[in-house]
Amino acid sequence: MSQTLIFTNDCASELNKYIKQTGITQVFILADSNTAAAAALPLKAECWSLVDAPLIVIEPSDIYKNIDSLCHIWSELVKLGATRKSLLINVGGGVVTDIGGFAAATFKRGIKFVNIPTTLLASVDAAVGGKTGINFGSLKNEVGAFCEADAVIISTDWLETLPPEETLSGYAEMLKHGLISSYEATDRLLDYDIEKCDRDLLLNLVEESVLVKKRVVEEDPHEHGIRRALNLGHTAGHAFESWSMRRNRPVPHGFAVAWGLVVDLILSHMRLGFDAALLRRVAAFVRSHYGVLPIGCADYEDLIALMRHDKKNSSADSINFTLLEAPGIVKIDCIVDEKEIGAALDIFRDLSGI
Amino acid sequence: MSQTLIFTNDCASELNKYIKQTGITQVFILADSNTAAAAALPLKAECWSLVDAPLIVIEPSDIYKNIDSLCHIWSELVKLGATRKSLLINVGGGVVTDIGGFAAATFKRGIKFVNIPTTLLASVDAAVGGKTGINFGSLKNEVGAFCEADAVIISTDWLETLPPEETLSGYAEMLKHGLISSYEATDRLLDYDIEKCDRDLLLNLVEESVLVKKRVVEEDPHEHGIRRALNLGHTAGHAFESWSMRRNRPVPHGFAVAWGLVVDLILSHMRLGFDAALLRRVAAFVRSHYGVLPIGCADYEDLIALMRHDKKNSSADSINFTLLEAPGIVKIDCIVDEKEIGAALDIFRDLSGI
Repeated sequence: MSQTLIFTNDCASELNKYIKQTGITQVFILADSNTAAAAALPLKAECWSLVDAPLIVIEPSDIYKNIDSLCHIWSELVKLGATRKSLLINVGGGVVTDIGGFAAATFKRGIKFVNIPTTLLASVDAAVGGKTGINFGSLKNEVGAFCEADAVIISTDWLETLPPEETLSGYAEMLKHGLISSYEATDRLLDYDIEKCDRDLLLNLVEESVLVKKRVVEEDPHEHGIRRALNLGHTAGHAFESWSMRRNRPVPHGFAVAWGLVVDLILSHMRLGFDAALLRRVAAFVRSHYGVLPIGCADYEDLIALMRHDKKNSSADSINFTLLEAPGIVKIDCIVDEKEIGAALDIFRDLSGI
Repeated sequence: MSQTLIFTNDCASELNKYIKQTGITQVFILADSNTAAAAALPLKAECWSLVDAPLIVIEPSDIYKNIDSLCHIWSELVKLGATRKSLLINVGGGVVTDIGGFAAATFKRGIKFVNIPTTLLASVDAAVGGKTGINFGSLKNEVGAFCEADAVIISTDWLETLPPEETLSGYAEMLKHGLISSYEATDRLLDYDIEKCDRDLLLNLVEESVLVKKRVVEEDPHEHGIRRALNLGHTAGHAFESWSMRRNRPVPHGFAVAWGLVVDLILSHMRLGFDAALLRRVAAFVRSHYGVLPIGCADYEDLIALMRHDKKNSSADSINFTLLEAPGIVKIDCIVDEKEIGAALDIFRDLSGI
């Protein structure tokens, strides 16, 4: 993997430098209608290398991460005369980097692309790791390719264009990366004042977080083994997300992951002796920033059924968790039974104060 | 590259063996409505490993190598419950192996696939080399991916289901592979009795031909350099193909390539001293099997303009040929001027007896 990762608070000049160094003369920008206004156009105004770059715009939000938007991008590239030597720059959140990456990976069997993530979640998660794709037939990311961006330019400057929930949502993934990395990384994240949001300090934490993900992905690019460490918090998290959706009270993905992390640490404590004090500290952090998910005993059955259907389960009979012995010591493929999950949800409610 | 290439006249048992060895239990077959009847269903009837394999059918011919057929394949895979561990078996000509390969390369970010080419052209060209894709916005192969089939099972048994022009069309590509490989390989191909069509002997020649392509592709998987050796015959060939199409008298691709090979050998003789006796022998072979393309002096301007617009040209001002000093000694990126091309077309008409 020869992906260039750039962490900067001067995105425009880093982008100029990068494009100059590639020698590419034909550049296209992809954004959604929100990030076009908030990021792509300001960037274009600041970057001499983007002066002639046409802007391709798609509709924002996950429901437009579909085949129609993909065909629109391909058509625009054809119409605008893109060649095998063109460069596509994806400016936006995970939807834009996922679909833009897939469009680039497949246009003329692959052109180069750069990701400029504008959300914290896309910075630490979507823009790195080579997963590109679209939703298809009501299934998320059903069609796509593993294809690394040639460069990812990460800046915390874009975050001020977004509501605070967006930042919190990405921060939950950072917490996950901290937990699968080390005690020290976790400690730094729990200590950071997320409300005050010092952007330079945050950029350092983001860099650390991205490098954790990069390391895991490099070890297992196609998700056959250790990459599943990145599923920490996600089996319970996805269940919380779907459960909330069904009740017409959707929660941001990162909030569900934050609660899922607490459940997974409880199971980690029960099964693998994960440190109780750190578990309580994470639970308090999550409670104070992400609030509480109002589940009761009566919801356990539904939640467990949702966990059972998570796509990471290789068989429908077992529920598969990624757990931790301690920060940085990951156990993938832990089969947990329903009774244990029920007990963990009891403790989760207890720690949430409900 | 760990692609398995199998040359056999017992396709069914080789496929059974291959599937058994992969341990894959969920298999899908893709064919077009012609190859479904002529090859996929007979194969399914003979193969115990395909007993439960659903058959996905698309419309035949290049005009259906499009986004609608691709979405149809993805939808069927979703509906039939395909997982990341499923296997897709593409049974057909280049259209089926191209679109089926791309569908597999992108479904759930990539499932395994096997190509069973049923035409000679697909056997020696389309099924090997990792080029997958679809036409898009009236452009050929505009969208796709480089993705090798896990296995290609090549048999000459399917050829009897097809008209002789199909075999001739593929044979022109074999002649090209012979020419870029060695004098001996070229000699064997010119000596083979293509009308009699001994299938065992042909299978040996196909194997030799595929291994030439495989060697070139392995050296240059993404077509940055020596893979362009495979363009021999194609700059003039594509021009002949388009020219015939415009006159509403379309010729098969391989016929255009056969004539293109003669033009390229003439240029090779003029520029690089390619042996005149071998040139005459190839020209006589092409004339006797592929007939004559009725071009006159008045057509040179159009033909040269078409060559100029060939997508392999990196700039519109130059016309780029792959030429030979001798069989097996390839010179890529030979810039040839219009006067030389005119002279070569004169000799081409002369050798064709027009």
